[in-house]
Amino acid sequence: MQNLKNHLKTISKFESAVSLLSWDFETYMPPKAAQKRAEIIGEIAGHAFKLFTSDKTGLLIEKAESEASSDIDKAVIRVAKKEYEKAKKIPPELFKEFQITTSKAQHFWEIAKNENNFAIFQPHLEKIVELTGKIVDCLGYKENKYDTLLDQYEPGLKTSQLKKIISYVKPFLVNFLDKIENGTKPDDKILTGDFSIEKQKKFSEKILDFLNYDKNAGRLDVSAHPFTITIGAFDVRITTRYSRSDLKNSIFSTIHECGHALYEQGIPEDFRELPIGEGASMAIHESQSRFWENIVGRSLNFWKFVYPTFCEIFSEFENVPVEKFWKAINKVERSFIRTEADEVTYNLHIMLRFEIEEALINNKISVKDLPVIWNEKMKEYIGVIPEKESDGVLQDVHWSHGSFGYFPSYMLGNLYAAQFYHTMTKDISDFDERILQGDFKSILNWLREKIHSKGKIYEPLELLKNVTGEDLNPEYYANYITKKFTMIYNL
Amino acid sequence: MQNLKNHLKTISKFESAVSLLSWDFETYMPPKAAQKRAEIIGEIAGHAFKLFTSDKTGLLIEKAESEASSDIDKAVIRVAKKEYEKAKKIPPELFKEFQITTSKAQHFWEIAKNENNFAIFQPHLEKIVELTGKIVDCLGYKENKYDTLLDQYEPGLKTSQLKKIISYVKPFLVNFLDKIENGTKPDDKILTGDFSIEKQKKFSEKILDFLNYDKNAGRLDVSAHPFTITIGAFDVRITTRYSRSDLKNSIFSTIHECGHALYEQGIPEDFRELPIGEGASMAIHESQSRFWENIVGRSLNFWKFVYPTFCEIFSEFENVPVEKFWKAINKVERSFIRTEADEVTYNLHIMLRFEIEEALINNKISVKDLPVIWNEKMKEYIGVIPEKESDGVLQDVHWSHGSFGYFPSYMLGNLYAAQFYHTMTKDISDFDERILQGDFKSILNWLREKIHSKGKIYEPLELLKNVTGEDLNPEYYANYITKKFTMIYNL
Repeated sequence: MQNLKNHLKTISKFESAVSLLSWDFETYMPPKAAQKRAEIIGEIAGHAFKLFTSDKTGLLIEKAESEASSDIDKAVIRVAKKEYEKAKKIPPELFKEFQITTSKAQHFWEIAKNENNFAIFQPHLEKIVELTGKIVDCLGYKENKYDTLLDQYEPGLKTSQLKKIISYVKPFLVNFLDKIENGTKPDDKILTGDFSIEKQKKFSEKILDFLNYDKNAGRLDVSAHPFTITIGAFDVRITTRYSRSDLKNSIFSTIHECGHALYEQGIPEDFRELPIGEGASMAIHESQSRFWENIVGRSLNFWKFVYPTFCEIFSEFENVPVEKFWKAINKVERSFIRTEADEVTYNLHIMLRFEIEEALINNKISVKDLPVIWNEKMKEYIGVIPEKESDGVLQDVHWSHGSFGYFPSYMLGNLYAAQFYHTMTKDISDFDERILQGDFKSILNWLREKIHSKGKIYEPLELLKNVTGEDLNPEYYANYITKKFTMIYNL
Repeated sequence: MQNLKNHLKTISKFESAVSLLSWDFETYMPPKAAQKRAEIIGEIAGHAFKLFTSDKTGLLIEKAESEASSDIDKAVIRVAKKEYEKAKKIPPELFKEFQITTSKAQHFWEIAKNENNFAIFQPHLEKIVELTGKIVDCLGYKENKYDTLLDQYEPGLKTSQLKKIISYVKPFLVNFLDKIENGTKPDDKILTGDFSIEKQKKFSEKILDFLNYDKNAGRLDVSAHPFTITIGAFDVRITTRYSRSDLKNSIFSTIHECGHALYEQGIPEDFRELPIGEGASMAIHESQSRFWENIVGRSLNFWKFVYPTFCEIFSEFENVPVEKFWKAINKVERSFIRTEADEVTYNLHIMLRFEIEEALINNKISVKDLPVIWNEKMKEYIGVIPEKESDGVLQDVHWSHGSFGYFPSYMLGNLYAAQFYHTMTKDISDFDERILQGDFKSILNWLREKIHSKGKIYEPLELLKNVTGEDLNPEYYANYITKKFTMIYNL
């Protein structure tokens, strides 16, 4: 067991180097270094992959299996074995072809998006769908090809379960969106203007302090697309972005990434460098970022607490009542872009993508028809049709990465967050009051004890049941949305 | 040959990762991550070392030797072979013991320095001297054990040659220092005060632009001790440090590191990731940093050119004549600290260290006597005795790293720089005028053509002869010092 752990920890150190090389790529690297840097990352990541897929790993897992006694050791073996067997099933040539294809595709996706022309991206996406199908064939599947893709991000969740959840959430959201039309629309003009980057930076740093992000074990930088990355033990970094004209962007990016980082900073030290030393799944991770961003960060009490600090930095808001500000940041809109979507429409954007992915991988639709299908679904779910492909089918980078199966994590994260929240308020009955007092520590402690401290020991649905006593139940999400937006829209 | 090159380039990518991990350690890493980071660096550096010392490298070198036709290929083999054979001669256990010992020693050196107590460092230094002796025995030597140490930093240079040079430079400097006592001492009160870090930063960035440092292939950050590091192709970074009370510090640190970086940025692209893709030697590297820092950066014409920019940023200097400023930054002082020494006393600090190192490694003196020997030599060369060991024998980190043989590079760098400068002014006869006009590009181009573009193809003394047509001749340095300081001190 110790030999297996040492082997995995060695591999993890090469992955740490890859993380730092990637972080630097997005933050501080001089522009001319990009091409060589990609080669360096490829070399080190390839080495880590080779070490992990070596026969040595298989042998060590086999030997350790007979020794493992503690739950932690068993979990280490379970996660490592699953990853190992998966990696061994994909022929290296196919893996390499997939990497080369997606690396090219990203380039052409960017061009296609800039030129607002799906045809440029189409052949690359077709190739990716084809190779993804081959990979699924290698990995195997029972009911639905999409199960295999979903399992990469949300181990244990089946496509059929996801469809069932959507069959509840979709009509709820479509109806609620209609209902909101009759409410009082918040005025969000106050959120546009010219906001100093220095001030936004200062406020972002303040938020991190309020939310108990450990800056001695992390840091905040700037990148084009905000992200959280764990370089190694005591080194969980986040990035945000600042726009002079858009105040919301940096604030909620920072809180969102802080949510991810609090999860990572809460992983027990003795799980580090092992396969259990990370979040339970992509969606559990997203539940943490969404919890802090939306359930805490877009609540009235949160803003009542931070507003004095906020107004001290942004004196232009001194005469804006906090309720008005709170409503403004929660304005619901039938809009085109997922990343800018509010809490009500966000999941509709995800369902649309899931349905397209699931149909693509099962050969029920063709890549060439995506622009039309996209717009039809936009009309059906959100009620608006983008005028440009760059605001529609070309808006997300994910498909160019070949990340099919990833999008549902965003929706599941919202549902998990609402369900955790429901359970939490049973344990912390004065939740609202604590937020109002700025006591985020007791809330974080609850998440630490119930979720963060478990690392990847449990599969996500198992963890959810351990914490909430229930299977995934989308009603908590629906109740949360209904309650909150009924208030904001005076329904 | 191609196989050898590919192998070396692979190794170089792991070294790139180590460089970035180290750069980050000194600049942006959160403090709590230090211990784990050291482990990560150890793992990746160890992997690179293992790859390089593997039998594969030896075989590839052997095979390539018969194929190499171009001078470049021959140089690749020569440098790789020398390093390979050296590395193979040191038993891994000895290498490891040396690493563990020096890593511990750094820690105790720091404590000893803080507590101003050499006795704390003494046993660790004794161990390092002992292990260094063993390493020299493994590597072998002919005339003098110190030759082997010197060869690590200045390939080809013998201790006997160095002693001969010192026998010329030492009396010259000691006498010149006496002579200066009778001159007009510059007033440098203007250099102390309270100087905004932001302004110093702005001026440092301006300097980099003037000196043609390519910021798209590098960047300037802050660290406790300034350094230059090449992460990979098109990624040569420098750091500086800012002190509110000391204006000189950041300016000359920035110019010094810029000199190193200009060298690295001038290495031809097709040398990259190969053993010839770096500076010819430590002292040739130092000749570049010293050239820009002292010969250019502390010249009157340089300041005449940059002074308007400088005064625009530091308005408090508007009424200070540029000549007064120039004399102030060139004030000569009999002081204790090497890193703060002026151009006249600097080399005396180095000779003292060299003589101690050479005596130590040849068992002519004992570690325990160093504090006394140090002070005796300080009295003899510089004419002052430090009151504290932390200002004397404990001031430098080098010995705790086990870097015996390194110090002479600093002195040699000054001598090389003066000799290059002499040759350059024959080619660029209006050198002074160009500096005055801020035309640093033509000077850089000369260095690029004669020195930078050669990478590590030639050994340092060979390169010097190619460029200047002469062996190392310390008279150029003496002439440069005499001329410059005769003017400053009105001798």
